[in-house]
Amino acid sequence: MSDLPPEFALIGRHFRPLAGEGALDLTDDAAVLAPPAGRELVIAADAMVAGVHFLADDPPETIGRKLLRVNLSDLAAMGAVPLGYLMTTAFPKDIEDGWIARFAAGLAADQREFGLSVLGGDTVGTPGPMTLSLTILGHVAPGAALRRAGARPGDDLWVSGSIGDGALGLRAARGQLPDTDGFLAGRYRVPQPRVALGLALVGLATAAMDVSDGLMQDLGHLCRASGCGAEVLADAVPLSDAARAAIAVDPGLRPLPFGGGDDYELLFAAPPAKAQEIQAAAAAVGIAATRIGRFVAGHPAARLLDAKGAEVALPRGGWSHF
Amino acid sequence: MSDLPPEFALIGRHFRPLAGEGALDLTDDAAVLAPPAGRELVIAADAMVAGVHFLADDPPETIGRKLLRVNLSDLAAMGAVPLGYLMTTAFPKDIEDGWIARFAAGLAADQREFGLSVLGGDTVGTPGPMTLSLTILGHVAPGAALRRAGARPGDDLWVSGSIGDGALGLRAARGQLPDTDGFLAGRYRVPQPRVALGLALVGLATAAMDVSDGLMQDLGHLCRASGCGAEVLADAVPLSDAARAAIAVDPGLRPLPFGGGDDYELLFAAPPAKAQEIQAAAAAVGIAATRIGRFVAGHPAARLLDAKGAEVALPRGGWSHF
Repeated sequence: MSDLPPEFALIGRHFRPLAGEGALDLTDDAAVLAPPAGRELVIAADAMVAGVHFLADDPPETIGRKLLRVNLSDLAAMGAVPLGYLMTTAFPKDIEDGWIARFAAGLAADQREFGLSVLGGDTVGTPGPMTLSLTILGHVAPGAALRRAGARPGDDLWVSGSIGDGALGLRAARGQLPDTDGFLAGRYRVPQPRVALGLALVGLATAAMDVSDGLMQDLGHLCRASGCGAEVLADAVPLSDAARAAIAVDPGLRPLPFGGGDDYELLFAAPPAKAQEIQAAAAAVGIAATRIGRFVAGHPAARLLDAKGAEVALPRGGWSHF
Repeated sequence: MSDLPPEFALIGRHFRPLAGEGALDLTDDAAVLAPPAGRELVIAADAMVAGVHFLADDPPETIGRKLLRVNLSDLAAMGAVPLGYLMTTAFPKDIEDGWIARFAAGLAADQREFGLSVLGGDTVGTPGPMTLSLTILGHVAPGAALRRAGARPGDDLWVSGSIGDGALGLRAARGQLPDTDGFLAGRYRVPQPRVALGLALVGLATAAMDVSDGLMQDLGHLCRASGCGAEVLADAVPLSDAARAAIAVDPGLRPLPFGGGDDYELLFAAPPAKAQEIQAAAAAVGIAATRIGRFVAGHPAARLLDAKGAEVALPRGGWSHF
């Protein structure tokens, strides 16, 4: 194949081994896929830019995994089973073959962990920062997808895992705070998409989404979609031990979990009567689920309350690109 | 919605009006789509970088249309019916709202022309050149997708439309050659995906692909996939009047149609017995189809021949990113 230009060799060497059923070995114009019978497709796309969504000197393995995992997190939020993905990569022209090999190795590991494979994509060169885009496909039973619209006044507000590690982890990855065991930086670089929990919440949660742009901002989206308000008890928001330790050293970091991004946890609503079932479902998949507040009638916005019920003011907004 | 960060306002203002069934108004984590019953999905993704795949000062309308059309061309090559698309956009932070409005207007026009709508995507900022990625979904009858593997020795080699306009059009758009009526630049900026012809070729063509990286390079891919060789008669390759005029002025451009990219025509194989049916099918959809050579047994490579049957040497390779 030495008469082929380098991009075809690159695809053949690094990405073809990731190809699954329907990908046609990445040698055709498109993938051909029989959709799972009697299921609806769930499809999402996310893009990442070096220096914006990941650090250019992050390990290549974690960059591929983060790209796949932020998309898996969207499937998790819909309660969908992963099926496959297409990926476009705009690489700087001086990229090294070994870098791409490690990037692909990270994807290969996550393909095994989450049970999906690459269906297609495109590889181009760019004079700018590395820019990656991934479209993920999953499937659900008809009508079963978890949606943002569906929370009702009186529903409990839940969150999975711990909040704030991603935003603290970005600072740790930049060397701006101590992170001796690398837990926080790891949470920034390799999010944990809550796919198993999302599947378990189908039929239990009335609404769900993933937290990617900051807890309070994303909850605001869920409130607007559902047409009701929400109150979050600041003290109830689950923090990891590492996050507590970092905040103890620098109390100025205290607001970060409420407005920082990159959590990739699930935020969901459910009637109080479902609380035990939710705890059991979460325990069964080994993911913590914590009630952090409730939905209320009225203006569709999210309020953060302290232990006395007074509203806590936060720095405005979450993460925005413009 | 004034409490939302600007990217959400941008999406709501410009992209939500493009959303179709299943897109959930672009307000959820993913699209939910019931796949057409009894059909296979055909899925492709292509990326474009400003300064690489389009000119940064191209009209915004044509950039959106080109992005959609290069992907529609992949569906055309598989004989698939367009269904929908997801798009990720990495925009420079100083992008103007009016620019995005025009970009979206181009997409809206092509959605109407080709009968599909946006299902989802992501909008991010970039410190680098604008980088766009689109994943397109289509559908075919089970087993009916046109593939690259399938050409047999003795099959005719066909091409749709005219070849070389895209590569000449890039030079015209840069002001490097005369193009008084803008035909060539138009062919570079707004390719014509041969969707209707691709659909008509199902059951007639033994193999097909779209020509995006250059006629001879892409034919080489088709030869390798099919395991046979191909001979192209240089004089038979269809050129537009504008291309002929440009080459008459500068004979140095003569090799360009054989190796230049951005044609987005269909290259396909069919037994000679199907020639009349193919001509009739092409005429019915108003797209020219021209026999430019044949497939032969032996080494899976493409050879370009002059009127005397002697091989024509070309500058090496087609377009490559690395």
